[in-house]
Amino acid sequence: MLTTQDAAKKGFVWLVGAGPGAADLITLRGLKLLQGAEAVVYDELANGDLLQNCPAGCELHAVGKRAGKHSATQGEINALLVSLGSAGKKVVRLKGGDPLVFGRAGEEIEALRAAGLSFEIVPGVTAATASAAALGLPLTHRDFSSAVVFVTGHQCAANTDALDWGALARLRATLCFYMGVRRLPEIAHNLLHHGMAAAMPLALISEATRSTQKITITTLGEAERMAPEEIVQPALVVIGEVVRLADFADRVPGMVAKAAG
Amino acid sequence: MLTTQDAAKKGFVWLVGAGPGAADLITLRGLKLLQGAEAVVYDELANGDLLQNCPAGCELHAVGKRAGKHSATQGEINALLVSLGSAGKKVVRLKGGDPLVFGRAGEEIEALRAAGLSFEIVPGVTAATASAAALGLPLTHRDFSSAVVFVTGHQCAANTDALDWGALARLRATLCFYMGVRRLPEIAHNLLHHGMAAAMPLALISEATRSTQKITITTLGEAERMAPEEIVQPALVVIGEVVRLADFADRVPGMVAKAAG
Repeated sequence: MLTTQDAAKKGFVWLVGAGPGAADLITLRGLKLLQGAEAVVYDELANGDLLQNCPAGCELHAVGKRAGKHSATQGEINALLVSLGSAGKKVVRLKGGDPLVFGRAGEEIEALRAAGLSFEIVPGVTAATASAAALGLPLTHRDFSSAVVFVTGHQCAANTDALDWGALARLRATLCFYMGVRRLPEIAHNLLHHGMAAAMPLALISEATRSTQKITITTLGEAERMAPEEIVQPALVVIGEVVRLADFADRVPGMVAKAAG
Repeated sequence: MLTTQDAAKKGFVWLVGAGPGAADLITLRGLKLLQGAEAVVYDELANGDLLQNCPAGCELHAVGKRAGKHSATQGEINALLVSLGSAGKKVVRLKGGDPLVFGRAGEEIEALRAAGLSFEIVPGVTAATASAAALGLPLTHRDFSSAVVFVTGHQCAANTDALDWGALARLRATLCFYMGVRRLPEIAHNLLHHGMAAAMPLALISEATRSTQKITITTLGEAERMAPEEIVQPALVVIGEVVRLADFADRVPGMVAKAAG
């Protein structure tokens, strides 16, 4: 049973985007919230250095979701957020990139709403724009691409109908695949099957904006034939004509020269 | 003719994302660069308060591109960046949102490369994720949408072939239109014509994350019939099933109730 004192102390949950990796690519608002947090629930994808901003006595809960490792289920994370918020704490849910792009924040929001807890979302720099910055190329360009699509690689199996591969291939957009890069050959196969050119340039960016950043530039045709051990993980995949504009695209054998400056 | 002294002093240009509007949604890296800048070239879309971080003596160049007002041409902006960089200055090119999403940064990058100047891109929070934060909804959701598309509203006229409207309508993605909201009726018409449902929810978000933020929630069918004076400008348009999850979607007459929490 709630005492009057419990009821008076209302918790609050902030869903905060930690940005793409480098600790100084979090927003000022995100940093300030970490500095005042009483509990932080964080993914492994967020930069661990950020946690040094939390005050002494702040509870830290790792609920990492790195592929292949055991981690908390989404239901457990939801329950933890509700429990900490209900206990009256100032809770920061720190998520890699932006909370609302493939972060399953929708499910956390639903749980918080159902529990009647107050929450707010603090946007962050998402992996695709950070990867474009690392590559030195625009995701959109008047001459090459008038749209950019973020897709989750989790839904790239040939037999899923969640994604219309024909539409995706026809769109003349820059395509950014988040996660699921293990399925790169299937992604490439699906796009080739729906008419995208084998020569379409493709970039893999691993740990964008960190000192450990790795970039591979190839083509859609080559990607279809890649062996799993050639694929750096985790990585974001960028497919589209704009990849021709990458700083070093002209140094890649077989790569079409980038457009004249 | 360059003197030895001129040649020794090399300028550097940072293309910095100012974020979506609120001054505390810039990244720490962006803030630090502003604090050390010798010249700043800024759009009107970036938050003017951010300029208070520039040191005394920093040159400020407004090259605003707000729709309908006179502003510097892209060629003039490119020339200014090259001129300031060539003069050996530390130059910050401050752009609203993320520099690489519809910011024409591609053309600035080409000009800097052609001039042999060093540059770096600092990503920022883009308008679509900030708008989603304002709406309290995820741009992607396992049950509703497995992709999100950013499109420029500038290319929404019915007679342009730059955009494959059929593919866009078929994608079952969340669609975010940047700029060109004056063309909202045409955008709606094109999507309806290609089979998207008239009941598809649609949100207009103006000045997301600022105190002046305005949100309108309606449907695709209603948007096609909107008069220009009903449309708040500038605004980002979000179209997709996820809009049903917005905080207040259930308060809009005729709006389908949001999914149960």
